[in-house]
Amino acid sequence: MPQVDATARPTGQPLIESDRVEGTSVYSPDGTKVGSIERLMIDKMSGKVTYAVMSFGGFLGMGSEEFTIPWSKLVYDTKLGGYKTDITEQQLKGSPTFYRDQLYDWTDRNRERELHDYWGASYYW
Amino acid sequence: MPQVDATARPTGQPLIESDRVEGTSVYSPDGTKVGSIERLMIDKMSGKVTYAVMSFGGFLGMGSEEFTIPWSKLVYDTKLGGYKTDITEQQLKGSPTFYRDQLYDWTDRNRERELHDYWGASYYW
Repeated sequence: MPQVDATARPTGQPLIESDRVEGTSVYSPDGTKVGSIERLMIDKMSGKVTYAVMSFGGFLGMGSEEFTIPWSKLVYDTKLGGYKTDITEQQLKGSPTFYRDQLYDWTDRNRERELHDYWGASYYW
Repeated sequence: MPQVDATARPTGQPLIESDRVEGTSVYSPDGTKVGSIERLMIDKMSGKVTYAVMSFGGFLGMGSEEFTIPWSKLVYDTKLGGYKTDITEQQLKGSPTFYRDQLYDWTDRNRERELHDYWGASYYW
């Protein structure tokens, strides 16, 4: 049975405050909670959400660690009141390392392309 | 001379964390600080930023109050390290009142249309 956070009850409301997305649970396709959203990365110019910084808390035996995931890899599930992703532990382990640097500045479009290609995610730009 | 917050220095970085947008200054076209962003409203499904909840702190003599402004009314200015808007005090005073209700649930597209039309803002949907 899927775990649903009481704080992230589905409300039916189409909009959500940015400071409420921070902390929203993320589930695997079978409805198991795998982590939560720490914050969003937003394109200053266009106002598009580009990435979610997620913590995968002990996901499949991994320690808690932050990963920056293309936003298009997350799909909102109104029943769960959270996001679903099909990202696997294997994918996380093999993912490019440059972007795990907390000081990475996201100015290199080629590297972003590499990251999206790795995840099989559509580009946001 | 425009006021520039030390915390919102232009970094040249194209992406910004959602928890850093919260608090970013907003300026009038002449570079005067008129308020700041409290939080963003995000469309859960598309991941688009739809509105910014802004506080206009004593803007042109008004007391500090929160207004939900269509995102397209804000333009990022890299020199100021904040957003510019051409919204005037007159417009704020005459704006529809329904959306100032903190519990307003944003499920009525007609009302959103009315709000965008009022501000002369392009629809986000």
